[in-house]
Parts: sequence; C-alpha cells; structure tokens
Amino acid sequence: MKMLINVPESVVPDALRGMAAAHPELTVDVEHRVVVRRDAPVAGKVGLVSGGGSGHEPLHGGFVGYGMLDAACPGEVFTSPVPDQMVRAAAAVDSGKGVLFVVKNYTGDVLNFNMAAELAEDEGVQVASVLVNDDVAVTDSTFTAGRRGTGATLFVEKIAGAAAEEGAPLERVEALARRVNEASRSFGVALAACTTPAKGSPTFDLPAGELELGVGIHGEPGRERRAMMTSGEIADFAVDAVLTDLRPGGPVLLLVNGAGGTPLLELYGFTAEVHRVLGERGVPVARTLVGNYVTSLDMAGASVTLCRADEEILRLWDAPVQTPGLRWGR
Amino acid sequence: MKMLINVPESVVPDALRGMAAAHPELTVDVEHRVVVRRDAPVAGKVGLVSGGGSGHEPLHGGFVGYGMLDAACPGEVFTSPVPDQMVRAAAAVDSGKGVLFVVKNYTGDVLNFNMAAELAEDEGVQVASVLVNDDVAVTDSTFTAGRRGTGATLFVEKIAGAAAEEGAPLERVEALARRVNEASRSFGVALAACTTPAKGSPTFDLPAGELELGVGIHGEPGRERRAMMTSGEIADFAVDAVLTDLRPGGPVLLLVNGAGGTPLLELYGFTAEVHRVLGERGVPVARTLVGNYVTSLDMAGASVTLCRADEEILRLWDAPVQTPGLRWGR
Repeated sequence: MKMLINVPESVVPDALRGMAAAHPELTVDVEHRVVVRRDAPVAGKVGLVSGGGSGHEPLHGGFVGYGMLDAACPGEVFTSPVPDQMVRAAAAVDSGKGVLFVVKNYTGDVLNFNMAAELAEDEGVQVASVLVNDDVAVTDSTFTAGRRGTGATLFVEKIAGAAAEEGAPLERVEALARRVNEASRSFGVALAACTTPAKGSPTFDLPAGELELGVGIHGEPGRERRAMMTSGEIADFAVDAVLTDLRPGGPVLLLVNGAGGTPLLELYGFTAEVHRVLGERGVPVARTLVGNYVTSLDMAGASVTLCRADEEILRLWDAPVQTPGLRWGR
Repeated sequence: MKMLINVPESVVPDALRGMAAAHPELTVDVEHRVVVRRDAPVAGKVGLVSGGGSGHEPLHGGFVGYGMLDAACPGEVFTSPVPDQMVRAAAAVDSGKGVLFVVKNYTGDVLNFNMAAELAEDEGVQVASVLVNDDVAVTDSTFTAGRRGTGATLFVEKIAGAAAEEGAPLERVEALARRVNEASRSFGVALAACTTPAKGSPTFDLPAGELELGVGIHGEPGRERRAMMTSGEIADFAVDAVLTDLRPGGPVLLLVNGAGGTPLLELYGFTAEVHRVLGERGVPVARTLVGNYVTSLDMAGASVTLCRADEEILRLWDAPVQTPGLRWGR
C-alpha cells in the first residue's frame, strides 16, 4: 500500500507542520502536539478542548477556531493522546472561566482525559468533561466499554463551541454538550478497510462482495457482514438502526459522513437515499451536512448521524464557525 | 470494486438529488442536470457558469453560490456535459449583464461550450469564455490538445466569481479569469488509480511500488513512472515542475489538492514538504488551501497548483464565498 508520506514514524508531526504552514490563524506546537486558536485564551470564554487518535481528520485539529474548539490534542494514528498534551491545551486556552474536555468514548482517551482533568485541576484550571458515545452499532467493542464515540462528536463540538463563543458559563456549555450527545445517534458501514501507515496493509479483512454493517471509526467490527447492498438498502438499514434507538419526534440535524475513501459523488447519492428513508419514516430534516468530517484514513464507507434539534440547538448549529474543516456564516 | 451506489447508470442523478436535499440554497434541476444559485439571476451581476464531467466533486456543482459560480453543468462521470445544459444554465443566470463560461481544456468540453455559447448568443445572452489549461505535465494528452485544465479551475472560479459579485462588467470578469489562468500552473501525481462506476475496475494500471508523475484528473498518463518516492521527494519534483514553467517573482496562492483517496493526514504532511521546497526556492506563500477540491473519484495522489498573486488577486481570493465546497468570510 503506497502512501504520500515520508516515513510512518513522522506522519503526525509532518501533518502538524503542514497545518502550521497552511493555517496562520492556529498556533501549532509540533513538538508537544497541541493545536490552539491563535487568539487563545479568549477573555471571558470557556475553553473547549478535544483530541484523540490521528487518522480521523479534519476531526479534531481541523475543528479548532472561532465558534468550535479552542484546542485539540492529536495522538498517534488511532492511538490516544497523552495527558501531558491535554494539560498543556487546557492551560493554553483557560481564560479563568474553565475548560470543557470533549472525549470520545474509547478506553485510552477516557483514561488519559480523566488523568489530565485531575492534573489541570491541580494547576488551578476548572475542568468539566463530556463523553461522546453515539454509535448504536454495538454496546462494547475492541476499544470501548459501552458505545463508541463517532459522528456526534462534530455536533457536540460545534454546538457547545457556539455556546462558549456566546459567553455561556462552564456549567451551561457542559450541560449543552451532554444534551447534544444524548440527542444524537450514529451508524456506520464499511465497504473497504483502511490502512494505517505503521501497518502498511488493511487493518481488517473484508472479502470482495461483502460490507461491514455497524463498523467503528478504526474499522472495529460491527453488527454483521452481508453481501454487498445498494446505496438505498444501506440507507434503509443505517437509518432504521438509528431510529430504533432515537425517537426524534421532531426535526433533526443530519450528518452524512464519509469514511475517507468514498468519493463525494457517492456520498451525495447516499444522502438522497437517507433523505428518502427519513421522509418515509416521517422525520423532518432541518439541516444536512455531507462530507468527510470524521474519517478513518482511506476507509471506504459512510455513516449517518442524527441529532434531535430543538430551537436552541438549531440556532447554535447555524451560528458562525471559522475552522479549517468547518466554516460558515461570518 | 464495491461502491456506495444504486446502479452505475444513476450515479449522477442520484448525487444531484442528494445535493438538492442537502443544499436548499441551490436550485437543482435533476432532469436537465443543472445546478443554479437559488437567487439567480442576481440583478446587475455577470453570471458565471462552469461544468464538466462528474467525478471531480466538489468541482463544479459544489462551487455554486455567493461569490463563486452561478451555475454548474455536470456531465456523466469523466464525460463532458452537453450544450443544452449550458444553454439552460446561461439562461437561468443571465441578468442582462452577460455570462462567462469557465471551461477546462478537454476536447469534449471545449466543443460543447463553444456550441452552447453560439446557441445562447442566438437567444440574446452575451457570452464570453475562458479556457483553463494549467497542467504543466504534458502538452497534449488522451483528452486534450494543449495543456489540461486542473486545479487552477478553482482559482479562476473563486477570483472571477468574487469580481462578478462586486459588480464588475463582463469584459473585466473575463480578463481577470484569463489573467488568473495565465498566472497559474499545476502538477499532479497518482499513487493509485481511480475506479469509475461504469467500468468497476481501475481506469489505469499502476504497478505496486510505482507512482505516476504528472497524472491528469482522469488518470491520463503523465510524464513518467518511477519507483515510489517519499512525500518530500514528490514535493521537490512537483514544485520544480511548476516553477520551471511559472516564475512567480513574488507571493503565490498555493492549492495542495487531494485526488480523493488520499487521507487529509497525508495531504497536510505533503503540504509541509511543499512549503519547505517553496521556501528553499525563495517563493513566499501568501495563502494555502489544503483538501479534496478537484478530485478524481477515489484516486490516491495529490496535485500542487500555484498562482502568482498580486494585490487584486489576493483581495478577491479573500473575499467572502458561500458554496457547499468552499466558504469563508461572511
């Protein structure tokens, strides 16, 4: 498997050097692996910090900026960042109003963010944490106890980030982040596995003519393998898996997220099918975002994330955001 | 090769249905395959129309909106749209101030846009056309006489679009588009071929351990095949190929464009190397855009596009844009 890299060992710092070059509005500490808004700490504002293994770009570093994250901590590919990164990030973005850690539910991330929260508190930074666990596919998996955190991370970071930008206090930003997570569910499918730089060959084995239903963002196994299905059949399966668990009872935000290796042309065709199924199930779609946002390197596939959208969530979703990976309205 | 599609025959209309569902700010005519700004025609504004084969998303449909294109005409995958689409698009966006066709230099596109220009003129629409031909890799290729149009299309559409949004008359928008094309050069590499829905297997044969230097956006052959190179070596080769042809003599806009199948993590690492080479060659980079903008379905690889940036070009580049694929500053 050929890759556009120098050596596998330097993939993450090389990417951080590229982010620094491309985005003068960010401060990128390549040595300590922390990406921070250049204007941090923003006076009077709660700081939002997230992070996780690399390989899911633009998540999380690409979501640092006005209206979303204040800092991100990238680990090695598919590997948790370490507490030192998170403590540095918290210190860099704390204006005195406290910091919220947005943590995807993977064992390593949870342990390290917990340890970092304690260390940062020792240094006088008030820290709250919210766990993202939106994936309905499986209850436990290779890297998690409980549900995995996937596409809803984008909703949590965007909506809590908008509230923080408006000056909401830590308790409110934390409560809102928790509410968005609880209002969100995801389901993903893989058509082809991804290849990590270190391994150099596919991370799992998916036979020709089969797809993995309920795959995780590292290629963790899902619910079942089936013979290849059409876009419409996959949309039926994925939307119904989400709706079995989430009764929207009103409008939703929809994320049709690409795993990385599936062309945008196909993602839009899949979006049409997802809208068809939601229409048949009587679920109105208030906003739709389509693209590669929470990726798994070059994995082929897609996921569907729904979030119950009340007026507050819709208003904060629409609020201006200016990050490398998501931007609108300002 | 598995794809997230229904049947190969419906890939383009399916994607258009998805665009219509996801982007209420666009009017998508699925039957006639035209994507138009919902507020078109904008009074007093020159209309910008582009189009070409599908498979390069977000180009062109994803660049329709405030500050960029007024309409786009998608053909079948890697196949020119037909004159009827272009005439419809021109009629839909003409406010009486005329229409500029932005045409990538492929034989089919050139013929059909030329025919459409005549037909639209017969219907009373004033039409000017600009040809984009920025690819320095080869002078003639499978689908072109002369140089191919690739990444510079984004620069032309963004910068001419900003001028049109400001109310510049047709002659000025046309001259500016021509100037941006003449100030831009690109060079691309492929690490793995793409697969079209109709064919279902890779469009060209690239042996393990080799890369194609100077590939086109449909996988057309480039200058040469070599044993696999590092990201740094590829950056040296690609930047030098561009700089041999374009003497910037000042700051440049830089697009590091993904072919579609290469993860953003790798594109950022490659960006670091491209910046390194430009630094060594004494070329200051005024703005950098990194991502999948002019893609070739799931092809793995990347291209480098430089545009000589004077004050006017920089100002228009920074001007607000609101499209599905590119948005900032409003």
